[in-house]
Parts: sequence; structure tokens; C-alpha cells
Amino acid sequence: MFHMKQNREMKIVLICIGTELLKDKVNTNANLIAQNLSSSGFFLSKTITVGDELKDIEDAISQSLKSADILITCGGLGPTFDDLTREAVAKVLKLPLCFSKQILKKIKERFRNANLSMPRENERQAYLIRNAKPIINKVGTAPGQIIKFKSQDSKLKIIVLLPGPQKELLPMLGEVVCPYLKKRFGGTKIRSKVFHIFGYPESLIAERASKVTEKNWSSPQVKVVFGILAHHSIVDLKVTAESKQKIWAKKAIRQISREFYKVFGEDIYGEDEETLESVVGKLLKKRGETLAIAESCTGGLIAHKITGVPGSSAYFKEGVVTYSNESKLRLLGVKKETLKKFGAVSRQTAEEMAKGILKRSGSDWGISVTGIAGPSGGTKEKPVGLVWLAVAHKKQLFSAKKFFYGERAEIKEKSALYALDFLRRKI
Amino acid sequence: MFHMKQNREMKIVLICIGTELLKDKVNTNANLIAQNLSSSGFFLSKTITVGDELKDIEDAISQSLKSADILITCGGLGPTFDDLTREAVAKVLKLPLCFSKQILKKIKERFRNANLSMPRENERQAYLIRNAKPIINKVGTAPGQIIKFKSQDSKLKIIVLLPGPQKELLPMLGEVVCPYLKKRFGGTKIRSKVFHIFGYPESLIAERASKVTEKNWSSPQVKVVFGILAHHSIVDLKVTAESKQKIWAKKAIRQISREFYKVFGEDIYGEDEETLESVVGKLLKKRGETLAIAESCTGGLIAHKITGVPGSSAYFKEGVVTYSNESKLRLLGVKKETLKKFGAVSRQTAEEMAKGILKRSGSDWGISVTGIAGPSGGTKEKPVGLVWLAVAHKKQLFSAKKFFYGERAEIKEKSALYALDFLRRKI
Repeated sequence: MFHMKQNREMKIVLICIGTELLKDKVNTNANLIAQNLSSSGFFLSKTITVGDELKDIEDAISQSLKSADILITCGGLGPTFDDLTREAVAKVLKLPLCFSKQILKKIKERFRNANLSMPRENERQAYLIRNAKPIINKVGTAPGQIIKFKSQDSKLKIIVLLPGPQKELLPMLGEVVCPYLKKRFGGTKIRSKVFHIFGYPESLIAERASKVTEKNWSSPQVKVVFGILAHHSIVDLKVTAESKQKIWAKKAIRQISREFYKVFGEDIYGEDEETLESVVGKLLKKRGETLAIAESCTGGLIAHKITGVPGSSAYFKEGVVTYSNESKLRLLGVKKETLKKFGAVSRQTAEEMAKGILKRSGSDWGISVTGIAGPSGGTKEKPVGLVWLAVAHKKQLFSAKKFFYGERAEIKEKSALYALDFLRRKI
Repeated sequence: MFHMKQNREMKIVLICIGTELLKDKVNTNANLIAQNLSSSGFFLSKTITVGDELKDIEDAISQSLKSADILITCGGLGPTFDDLTREAVAKVLKLPLCFSKQILKKIKERFRNANLSMPRENERQAYLIRNAKPIINKVGTAPGQIIKFKSQDSKLKIIVLLPGPQKELLPMLGEVVCPYLKKRFGGTKIRSKVFHIFGYPESLIAERASKVTEKNWSSPQVKVVFGILAHHSIVDLKVTAESKQKIWAKKAIRQISREFYKVFGEDIYGEDEETLESVVGKLLKKRGETLAIAESCTGGLIAHKITGVPGSSAYFKEGVVTYSNESKLRLLGVKKETLKKFGAVSRQTAEEMAKGILKRSGSDWGISVTGIAGPSGGTKEKPVGLVWLAVAHKKQLFSAKKFFYGERAEIKEKSALYALDFLRRKI
């Protein structure tokens, strides 16, 4: 074990490699890596993105190593000719690339399991920089690598090579890289919690939250930071507490959590990894009740969200996507006169859809959505974005009219989220 | 007017400034700026992200200027104490910041128009680096700046300062910066095309594509670049042609396109913005036929994809998500004995589901998927990831067995894509 500065003062630089990142692909990896590191108390001081040119990668690495204590690369470990990160790091460190029989065996195994034979190109992925510690890739072929070395001015430095695909790099970061860094450099204890709120504008949530966030929560023991982030109609309030001792960070989070619930009550639908659909599922499971869904404009999105939750088959019975009037009649028993008199997008149709799916499926809860997702199909009376939804439960029936702005995909998404939140508040 | 290298050889570096970009905010500006520049024939060779520390911004600027011909900064032009980009550029160039009465007048005007008085802090935004050309901000307060200067080694260089908010920087880029660069450095015409292929590993596609990509397509008139990108089970082959004359770029793309189709044939399911679901929709529309979907493990995802396409109500009649055995019997007419004898995940059940939805909906095409999405529910004979699917058309019936690796969400996604591709190949 060797000694370095404490993690707060350490300079960590991330280099993302991929010409597509300089063109038409948004670099979401940088953000994911930053978040993963920060939850272990490590912070990026810089990120660099370069294309797949060997010279550019080399320059970025050697320039960064002048000041960085830890260098993380992401991407360029694939099997094809333009994957050059291994070569670039080896060249800068003046170390050879060594072939690993073991790694090749693992790569071949992956192909065999998928009933494929390994293309010649993938052999390149079996090369490790000399003395590098490989990081096993559980979901792909390219292993990650960790290299410890002494720089010319005798400082000990670390380079971590990660593959580009998120499902490959995330387990490596969480299971290997963060624990490795923590073991070596201690790291402070970070606790954080995110509170999810649906259906209010960000500025309003910020104003309501200011009652809590404007108090001074930091102390010599613990540093508290608040954040707010909006996406679609969801606003996330985040609180992060950093401390030398886990107990202080945990205590701060607990106190702030209590205060947030005082302000927002059941407007907070969930925390951290929870989603509207997982919370709905939890509530149904607790009550031992079941759900069926009748969708028109959301086109299967609500069922897709509900069935995305592991174990949802315990409470989700069935869904129907009735995109034609004929299917609303046949599958849900909506009356012909209702469609004729009020139209497919109306309170009456939404209510008959919810009652219909409840009755036919024999579920405890029935939910329906019907609306105009656009871009065409709108009229002056019923414009694109108009949505009716209903929830049926035994003898109870609730309905609501909403209007959502946006493109087709956005109207579908907002309608689905609204329906799930509407259901959640009724259960 | 002064002379510099042609735009292809010019090195353009983008520096994004903002501590939030090193933490929880995804850097979408880098991508937007890259796309705007590239449509004028200019390409980023590197992007750097640093926090709001003066020293870090200065270092990034002075380091980048060693090799960059054009340096673009984004962010850090706001009114608050942590907006330091102006100061950093001025320090590196050893130029003073000069107060501009005119700019201040414009800023005050904006506040007056909104019936607000200008906070003192905003005065800082009225400072320009000496000799900088201001870029008027039509939607915010901070002007952009363009600075032309001679480096120590007598090279002429350009620095462009842009604000961080997208609605402010985009008009500046489109209306001022790109025309400015084009006027000075010419700029070339770019044409590109992306070919989408489903269901083969990236390395195999790369190997097959090499027949085309390894030919030398570039000439004095046109420069051709190939790229390959994999996400989920989709591989994208991209070709970009750059030329002084649009006609040369277009011709190269046309020739290469023809060669790719010779190699891949109908394995290429679409181009550019096309998706599997939009291509399926196009085929159905052309034949005037309709579709109905019976889903089990995909839980509504196929219907969601299909209904994501504008105008899909013309050919999509209905979908059912039969998550319980009971609903497979009632909604699709799957036989009790079939479920008992072969199980819900079997060729027989998939085929009866497809026939059932075809018959009951009266559609021309019926498609069904049944499988085990996990994480639980798998057995030794029928493990998580096993999926059966079927397509029914008049008297024809096709079915297939597949096995997908991954988490629940991934198995759902891959199954849905496979089903759409299976359907596409049958239509």
C-alpha cells in the first residue's frame, strides 16, 4: 500500500474517448462517472473528450498526467481498429501491452454462451498494459484495467481504463474502482437522498423547499449541499451530507428528510431509486390488490412502466391498448352512443373504459387514459394535448381532465406519469 | 481579413465551464455546439470541462491555446461572483477588461422591458476584453465575445466566449459565430448517412462492413470517414463525406450506400431517423394492412413503440398485455390445455396468442411475445431470458425461440426489438 494525498485534495481527471462524442452523441458517461465517484467522496476536477485518433488520446493523457493524481479513461477498449485507448496509455507510460490467455478465455466464453464464434478482432481485447490489474467485465468483452505507477517526479499515480458502454462500466466503477480508491485513500463518508415530486413547476418546488434549504445545516462535522433537478414533469430535490463519520452524515440527512416531509407531505411520491410505478406497485402489494389498465393515447406506455418493476406479475393482471373505437367497444364495453355523443376523448369514455377494464379483468383497480397525442388529430374543441383519465375501484370512480404541452412522445410520457400519480394518490 | 489554415486542419477546442457539469448535470451544450459547428463544416477536436475556479479555467485556456487555432468557451459569463470566464481569458491574454456603456444600456433595457430594475451584479456583464467584438444576446443579458489575436509564435488565433444557457448560445452560434468562421475559413459541405442493423454483434458487422470501409473512398475532391456505434442490439454504420462542393459529397454517399446494400441487403432495416417501428409502420401503410399485438413479457413495450410513430392509428388496431394465464385464455383464446401441457412460455402458447389476436381484432397481422423477463420466474428448463414469439398473417404462422442476456429492462427491450424485426422481415 502506498500513500497519497487525502481524497479531497486529489486531482482526478476523466478522459472520454470517442469521435461520436465530439459530434452527435451526448456524453452521458461523464456525468454517470462523476455521480458514482462523488457518492464515494471522490470528485472530478476536469473532464476531457477527444476523438479516436491515437495522437489526440496520447496528448490528452500525457498532458493530464502532469497534474492529475488519478486519471480515468472511458471508451476505446472495443475490438475494432478505432479502439486505441490501450495503445495510447501503453505508449505514454512506455510500457508494453501483454497478451493474457485468461482474458481471451473469458471473451471466448462469452461468445460461446451466445452460440457465436469469436471474431478475430476481439483478440485485441485480451491485451493488458504490463502490470495492470484487470477488471472483469461481467456484461461485455473488454476488461477494465487499473495501473499504478511512479511518474518522472516520483509521484505515485493511478490510471483506470474503463469501457464506454454504460452497462459495462457502471458495475466496474461500483464494484471495483470505487472500493479500490476508498481502500487506498480513505475518502469521506457521503450520504445523500433524493426526493421525487411530480406535477409542479421547478420554480414553485424551489420556493417551497427554501424553508428547508435556506437554513444553515452545515457544521464543523458535516457539510450539507442541496440540489434541484427537473426532468419531464418530475422535480428531484437532492440533499448530500459529507462527513468524516458516517453517523454525522446520516443524522443530517434524517433531520432534513423530516423537514422536507413537513413541507411537501404526500407530494413527495418517492425517494432515491423509487419511481411512480414502483411506488404504485408497493402500495398494491401491501394491500394485496390487483390492477388492470386500459390505454388509448399512451399506447401501452403505462403497462410498460408497470411491468418494468420486478415482481409486478403479482399485482398486474392485464392491459389493453384500444387504439380504435371498435376495440374500445369490444374489449372494454364502452357504449356506441357514448363514443358517438361525447367522442373517444371525453370524461364519459374514460370512465366507461376504467369501469370496463375493472369488470372484465376482475381486478381491484382499473385505470384508463384517452387523449390526443398529436401531431395531428386535434380540433379547436379538443386540441392536441387534451387527455382524460379515470380510476375505478369497487364502487368508486374518479376522473380528471388534463392538458399537456409538447411533442407526441412528451405528451405520452406526461400522460402516463400523471395517470400513475393520480392512481397513487387514490390508493 | 487574415489568413489561416483551411478549416479541416484547424484545431477547435471547446471549454465548458461550470462546477455542476462535473457533478450532477449532463453536459448537453458540448453536443449542441458540436452539431451546430459541424453543419457548417467545422469540427471539434477536443472538449474540456472545468469547474468555476479561476485557476482551473485559466489553466485550461492557456494549455489549449498551445495547439488550438480556435478556442470556444461556454458558460461563466453570468452576473455572479462565480462567473469568471471573462477574467480568465483576459488574464491569459494579458489584456484588460474594458467597460462598455453601450452593453450596459442594453442590459438595463432588458430589465426595464421585464419591469424590473437591474441588480448591481449585472454590471459585470458589461465588461469586454479589449478589442473584443461583442455578440448581442437577444434572450439574456450576457453578451458573447469574439477575440482575434496573435499568439507568441505569431499565429493568428480566435477565442469565442459564449454564455451557458442554450437558448442564449444557440442563436449566437447560428447567427454570428458560424457565419463569422465560414466567412474567414471557407467551410465545406458535409453529407452523412447512418445505416441501422439489428441483431448482430458489432464486431461481426464491422467485419462484414470492411469490404466497403476498407476501400479508399477519399479523393482530392472529397474526404470520406466511416464510424460504427452499437446500442442495445442495434448497430449503426455511419458514413460522412466532406467536400467543397455539395455534389461531390452527395455522390460519394450515394455510391457507398449502394455498396452497403450489396453487402447487407435487408439486414439494413432503416436509415438516419428511421426506427424499427417506423419502418414496420411504413410497410404496413404501403400495403394498406393493419396490426394487433399480444404481449406478455414485453408488457406493452411493443405497443408503446408502435404508437410512438405519428399516424400509427392508421394501421395499429389494438394491443393486449396478458400478464396472467387467465387473461391469455379470456382475451386471446389460448387453450387451457396448451398452457397446462406446454406452459405460458412455449411455441404453442406464442402461436395461439398470435392467432388469437389476429382473429379477435380482425387485423391483417398479429404478433405475440411470451417469455421470462426475470429477475425471478426462471427454471432450469426455462431460464430468465427465454422468449418465444410468433407472427400470424392470414393462413401463415411463423414462430421463433430466442434467448436474451441482461436485466429485466434489457430483456424487455431486446425482445421488443427482435419482435419488430421479425415482423419486418415477414411483411
